[in-house]
Amino acid sequence: MACCGGCLCCHCCCNEGETRTPEELTILGETREDDDEILPRKDYESLDYDRCINEPFLEVLEGLDNKKAKKYEAIKWILVFAIGVSTGLTGLFVDFFVRLFTQLKFSLVGQSVEECSENGCLALSLLELLALNMMFIFISSVLVLIEPVAAGSGIPEIKSYLNGVKIPGIVRLRTFICKVTGVLFAVAGGLFVGKEGPMIHSGAIVGAGLPQFQSITFKKILFHFPYFRSDRDKRDFVSAGAAAGVAAAFGAPIGGTLFSLEEGSSFWNQALTWKVLFCSMSATFTLNFFRSGINFNKWGSFQLPGLLNFGEFKCTDGDKSCHLWTAVDLAFFVLMGVAGGLLGALFNCINKRLAKYRMRNVHPKARFVRVLESLLVCMVTSLVIFMASVTLGECRDLVSTTNNNTSTQGSVNEEVNSTIRRFFCYNNTYNDMATLFFNPQEVAIHQLFHQNATFSPVTLSLFFVLYFFLSCWTYGVSVPSGLFVPSLLCGASLGRLVANILKINFHMQIYSGTFALIGAAAFLGGVVRMTISLTVILIESTNEITYGLPIMITLMVAKWTGDFFNKGIYDIHIHLKGVPLLEWETEVEMDKLTASDIMEPNLTYVYPHTRIQSLVSILRTTVYHAFPVVTENRDNEKEFMKGNILISNNIKFKKTSVLTRAGEQRRRCQSMKSYPSSELRNVCDEQVVVEPAEEGQDMLQQMLERRYVPYPNLYPDQSPSEEWTMEERFRPLTFHGLILRSQLVNLLIRGVCYAENQSSASQPRLSHSEMTEDYPRFPDIHDLDLALLNPRMIVDVTPYMNPSPYTVSPNTRVSQVFNLFRTMGLRHLPVVNAVGEIVGIITRHNLTHEFLVAKLRQHYITI
Amino acid sequence: MACCGGCLCCHCCCNEGETRTPEELTILGETREDDDEILPRKDYESLDYDRCINEPFLEVLEGLDNKKAKKYEAIKWILVFAIGVSTGLTGLFVDFFVRLFTQLKFSLVGQSVEECSENGCLALSLLELLALNMMFIFISSVLVLIEPVAAGSGIPEIKSYLNGVKIPGIVRLRTFICKVTGVLFAVAGGLFVGKEGPMIHSGAIVGAGLPQFQSITFKKILFHFPYFRSDRDKRDFVSAGAAAGVAAAFGAPIGGTLFSLEEGSSFWNQALTWKVLFCSMSATFTLNFFRSGINFNKWGSFQLPGLLNFGEFKCTDGDKSCHLWTAVDLAFFVLMGVAGGLLGALFNCINKRLAKYRMRNVHPKARFVRVLESLLVCMVTSLVIFMASVTLGECRDLVSTTNNNTSTQGSVNEEVNSTIRRFFCYNNTYNDMATLFFNPQEVAIHQLFHQNATFSPVTLSLFFVLYFFLSCWTYGVSVPSGLFVPSLLCGASLGRLVANILKINFHMQIYSGTFALIGAAAFLGGVVRMTISLTVILIESTNEITYGLPIMITLMVAKWTGDFFNKGIYDIHIHLKGVPLLEWETEVEMDKLTASDIMEPNLTYVYPHTRIQSLVSILRTTVYHAFPVVTENRDNEKEFMKGNILISNNIKFKKTSVLTRAGEQRRRCQSMKSYPSSELRNVCDEQVVVEPAEEGQDMLQQMLERRYVPYPNLYPDQSPSEEWTMEERFRPLTFHGLILRSQLVNLLIRGVCYAENQSSASQPRLSHSEMTEDYPRFPDIHDLDLALLNPRMIVDVTPYMNPSPYTVSPNTRVSQVFNLFRTMGLRHLPVVNAVGEIVGIITRHNLTHEFLVAKLRQHYITI
Repeated sequence: MACCGGCLCCHCCCNEGETRTPEELTILGETREDDDEILPRKDYESLDYDRCINEPFLEVLEGLDNKKAKKYEAIKWILVFAIGVSTGLTGLFVDFFVRLFTQLKFSLVGQSVEECSENGCLALSLLELLALNMMFIFISSVLVLIEPVAAGSGIPEIKSYLNGVKIPGIVRLRTFICKVTGVLFAVAGGLFVGKEGPMIHSGAIVGAGLPQFQSITFKKILFHFPYFRSDRDKRDFVSAGAAAGVAAAFGAPIGGTLFSLEEGSSFWNQALTWKVLFCSMSATFTLNFFRSGINFNKWGSFQLPGLLNFGEFKCTDGDKSCHLWTAVDLAFFVLMGVAGGLLGALFNCINKRLAKYRMRNVHPKARFVRVLESLLVCMVTSLVIFMASVTLGECRDLVSTTNNNTSTQGSVNEEVNSTIRRFFCYNNTYNDMATLFFNPQEVAIHQLFHQNATFSPVTLSLFFVLYFFLSCWTYGVSVPSGLFVPSLLCGASLGRLVANILKINFHMQIYSGTFALIGAAAFLGGVVRMTISLTVILIESTNEITYGLPIMITLMVAKWTGDFFNKGIYDIHIHLKGVPLLEWETEVEMDKLTASDIMEPNLTYVYPHTRIQSLVSILRTTVYHAFPVVTENRDNEKEFMKGNILISNNIKFKKTSVLTRAGEQRRRCQSMKSYPSSELRNVCDEQVVVEPAEEGQDMLQQMLERRYVPYPNLYPDQSPSEEWTMEERFRPLTFHGLILRSQLVNLLIRGVCYAENQSSASQPRLSHSEMTEDYPRFPDIHDLDLALLNPRMIVDVTPYMNPSPYTVSPNTRVSQVFNLFRTMGLRHLPVVNAVGEIVGIITRHNLTHEFLVAKLRQHYITI
Repeated sequence: MACCGGCLCCHCCCNEGETRTPEELTILGETREDDDEILPRKDYESLDYDRCINEPFLEVLEGLDNKKAKKYEAIKWILVFAIGVSTGLTGLFVDFFVRLFTQLKFSLVGQSVEECSENGCLALSLLELLALNMMFIFISSVLVLIEPVAAGSGIPEIKSYLNGVKIPGIVRLRTFICKVTGVLFAVAGGLFVGKEGPMIHSGAIVGAGLPQFQSITFKKILFHFPYFRSDRDKRDFVSAGAAAGVAAAFGAPIGGTLFSLEEGSSFWNQALTWKVLFCSMSATFTLNFFRSGINFNKWGSFQLPGLLNFGEFKCTDGDKSCHLWTAVDLAFFVLMGVAGGLLGALFNCINKRLAKYRMRNVHPKARFVRVLESLLVCMVTSLVIFMASVTLGECRDLVSTTNNNTSTQGSVNEEVNSTIRRFFCYNNTYNDMATLFFNPQEVAIHQLFHQNATFSPVTLSLFFVLYFFLSCWTYGVSVPSGLFVPSLLCGASLGRLVANILKINFHMQIYSGTFALIGAAAFLGGVVRMTISLTVILIESTNEITYGLPIMITLMVAKWTGDFFNKGIYDIHIHLKGVPLLEWETEVEMDKLTASDIMEPNLTYVYPHTRIQSLVSILRTTVYHAFPVVTENRDNEKEFMKGNILISNNIKFKKTSVLTRAGEQRRRCQSMKSYPSSELRNVCDEQVVVEPAEEGQDMLQQMLERRYVPYPNLYPDQSPSEEWTMEERFRPLTFHGLILRSQLVNLLIRGVCYAENQSSASQPRLSHSEMTEDYPRFPDIHDLDLALLNPRMIVDVTPYMNPSPYTVSPNTRVSQVFNLFRTMGLRHLPVVNAVGEIVGIITRHNLTHEFLVAKLRQHYITI
């Protein structure tokens, strides 16, 4: 089976295992351009999870005793609660309107079909359906045109954000409005999309926005507390919001918390987790409270957890031999896991190709083309739903098992039975295809899980195939669209099919609902490849702890099987977006590289005291987000080498391992000259200006053209000129701290500087709140009115720099560097040698999988 | 209510809030010695979670491709599975024998009582009970004498281990055997102890031991893979084992995973979590499988998750107005949380005093005194149980609600009703006190949760009071003893009492079981103060996701209330043991300190190439576990100061912030002379030898006396002598790496050295497996036969040192240092200044709360 699946997928060329060397691939005629063409984009910024404890921050700290700290902690709890409640209410809003529109639609069209059954006026019913659906989808699609990042499920974006990548516009109010309204109409419009992914995204936006108490349009309310206006806190609140989103969507507060932690938070911080769980609980029970009140008029009780709920799995009481599952079933679950993994891989593979096709052929065109595509998908879906319901269903008995049923089971079944469709079926029978297709998706899932009456194998197979391809096509269309519910439905039909076969052909005593559930888990696991959080979410959705083991084993097998062929759908889309995501761990092989192999050795630096004209020219001609603060140490190298051949116990210990920037650069150029690849070479080309970042060339050009530059020449004694020798260019620099671009611009704008003949103590001091006032959108250097600045004035950056960022030594192994960077949520990691000189800097881009692989290949070639 | 509780507890003087200054306390006549007398002990070692990537490791790495890495990953999965299954089987073993002995005992004595009811031969029954109980407890207590760390619940020890502290003997096979057998007899002996804590400890031992495939007695099977023989992997496996223990005890695999992560694992590592969850699942379902098979003869089904299970909370089907809980109830739950917190604080307070009393008066005496204490507790408990059952019970109706009950509820009730006791009650009535006392504790919990018949308020109150004090006395006696079940039972009786009052006096429509559950949660939460994991464990034990919110809120309130007075019981016992535990975070105020304030500036160091005689004398005269590898840089300081007054943009940037060891030492001595406290002063006393650690004085003395020292003098040109000036003693040292004591001893034992006239390349090379062969018990320097060594030979330590440990700069703030240390699981953190010189070293002891508080106080005084 695995082999057959492998063959299937080879044609899709989605096998990403690194089993073949580049030479082999050339011989085979396979070019790897398909996978390699998308490299991580360098214009995404990292979030900064590390705190910069500089002088203004210390001033705040001085005024902060434990009592005040407790007060702010209490405010955090209140905010977290508010986030939970708001997310719950958002869920309620979406659910209410989806329910309203869907009921309206199905009752209208359903009635019309039932009436038409014998009159042959089906065309009219179809037209009704089409009109309604296309209207809804049109609205949804137009909303996405307004804010393009609102398209899709939002999970890839939130995953990236929690991983530490800032994607523009992802947590803005406008995105929230478009996403929430958009998903409402997309689901109501009958597309094969879920509302769970968008719920998670919405929750995250609430988390990001609510504690800021501001939007671009609204007035600001400022807290004079530094923690609320930093990436660190924002990210914590986003974690809480995303968790609340999961909790509201699935009624799974623990699963939500684990989702947040699995995807994002750098380190397991008990205080944060506790808040996240509280936020999730608030969301779940807010939703629960209002839904119980509105739908059952039972205010004060909590009966309907989550938007998606799997109902109660329960044996009938009389039946003593009934088990939800037994040890023997586990074997089948493993096989279903394998099948789920294979099908999931196929789904991802097709979807990836589609997404690439869209990127090449749809996105470059006019925007309304995307709307047209949405409408096309909607039309086809509606047609398929209608045609399949009317022509392909079988009439099945409404089954005997319901008869000897008592109490509990009865009430569940009542509910399930009330949603069956009878299209053209009479005498206590029902149309099985229509029951699945002509209902909201949640109802169809309930049918598959709990309907004792059987579905015909042909119906189930057909349903699966149609659903599989349509939902695969739909995911990626420009409407807000979740993937959970369609995947669950797909998988459930498959699981139910297996159950049918085992029951009828092999006469096994099994519980069909369990098989449907496991099928759903297998397929969903195969598509999204989530692990812990998905296990817990599914357990919580079934509210049956005994399903833990089978669900976990199925998900595990599905993930392993799927990973053999390609990545999870979210990772694929993250990759397609070019987000520089950091995995959990580096591969073992990467430890052959050290920090000095992967760091960026070309540095743009500032001095502790710098003239304004130098600062401005540095800021205008580079695109870096941080600059090391250094002092030059011209004579130090020689001194050091002399001093280092020490006589200790009459033994010479040659410290050859101390890396200098010049030495490193020399080594690199030599190794690169022997290396054929072109992309890593230009560093050594003498024609290229070294200081401005290569990747920023076009942006730089644009900047220079756009603005008037009053300082035509770079300040001569400071910036490296092209006539410099290698040694001059890479002279030793003692490292003192790190200062951000935003901080420098802020200093310039607020006129923090002193005249040459004064002492630096005369420089005006900024408070912490002045430094962070403009968060998160700091002014650009080009917005600065240079006429107001005296270029000969001097800025003392030392009070505002981060004086003690974490650093690593050049011979630190990549796994250690990676752990430090990932776990501490860093943005810039200076590499400092044994004598305190900065020799390079490591950012997120130096740690992406693609970059490391390229460096490793280079490493193999040079040795 | 909160006020009243506060008054109560003030007398216990357990209020640990830092609201009063030392002067105020002196005025009030309150001495704080009670809390301050126990400082963290310095002889506990840290575990080393960071990997040391030295040359032997790199050799292993060279031979390791991704394929092999996958193979070892697979082995890990298998091991984790094996750990889960073994833990499950351990649980099964304990459960089986406890059940057997308890049934035997209760049926014997119960029968005798029922028969005696009218004959007045109760004394005989009592004697039977006493004899049986005391026999069991005697066995249990003797087992603990064999291995004293097997006493108590084991959770404090496991918490410490996961936090990174090595407590001797805690994960050994002998401890396992004593713990498992001991807890079996302790529970069977009718003490008010649970078996959950010991289960967790047992699981952890299985996790630590199983992947090593060795014990001191058994033969070794060696894996030639470095990961399995390091603290890092051992701790990962212990995490898995502890989680499996929780999972087996409560049938809560997710709760178990969260327990492990909450208490231990430094950073959230997805791969590890997934394995831990799998391990927990294996444990739960192994236990489940065998128990279902053995108890119901239904092999292949999974019906009884966990040793402790709360049964099913369910409304009767006919009753539409019944809710498990409503929004109104939440208010009562909050109040119960407050009450639980207060009572828990009282419990902890009394227990702390008892524990201190035991430490002073029982532990110093002969060991058999502990056995006598256990027997005393046992006797009193048995007497109370018997007397209360016979004399204090009320006869209550076996209640009407059971009548109009159908199906499901019926079967639950059948089970519950079968365990009631009728002592002296007839005519469809039962003795409520006997039902609670004269049953296994799990059964009593089920009674309180699910028995529809009411218990009289007097009975419940009496039961609570008796249970409270007896279980408080019991915890700390030298038998293996868990705390979960007694706390749950205590709390449940309280909750049931509240339910009774609300139902009868206020005629509210409530579900008694929920109140009992919430009461149990409140009291347990008040005692142990666990948060996330406890919430999840309780949710999983009830198998009812809708209890999430009330349980969480109750636990939160209970924790907050309790934290107002003292710490959780486990933390108290950890504190009493003097374990240098690291909290999750430092307080905000601590950020006023920097790394240079808290580091240890007195260093014992080695050179890259050192003579054997020097190494031996260093190893023999110090107790440090790691030594920085340095080269001296005598002239560097002056050079540096000269070079650093650089002319950059004509501005002098005086680098006054660069810390040197001599300067720092000078500063400290000055500040200390103005500081009255004595304990921090001796560093500057000229009489004290600087090199040997002050805290190791007695140990050192012992060492020196015990062994024959062939090298009477320290090698003169290497170790600081007393005539040195401050500058000579604290001369600048360039930092190159860190080498562990165990590594040095290993090098000496294996004769890794070269002669003076040879090159260091002639030194024999050790492989990684030779370096780690003796893990975890490395040989001592005093076991070394010095006759075999040539003292003039030279050892090159550079290939074996850790060349790139994480370092921090001296002006890094404490919170950053703490995060790095805690998150990366470090053992030694060198402090390196801006020119690459080591100025100090930070270990776990420099980061404990007590140390930081002392330093902060000193900081306030000096400024």
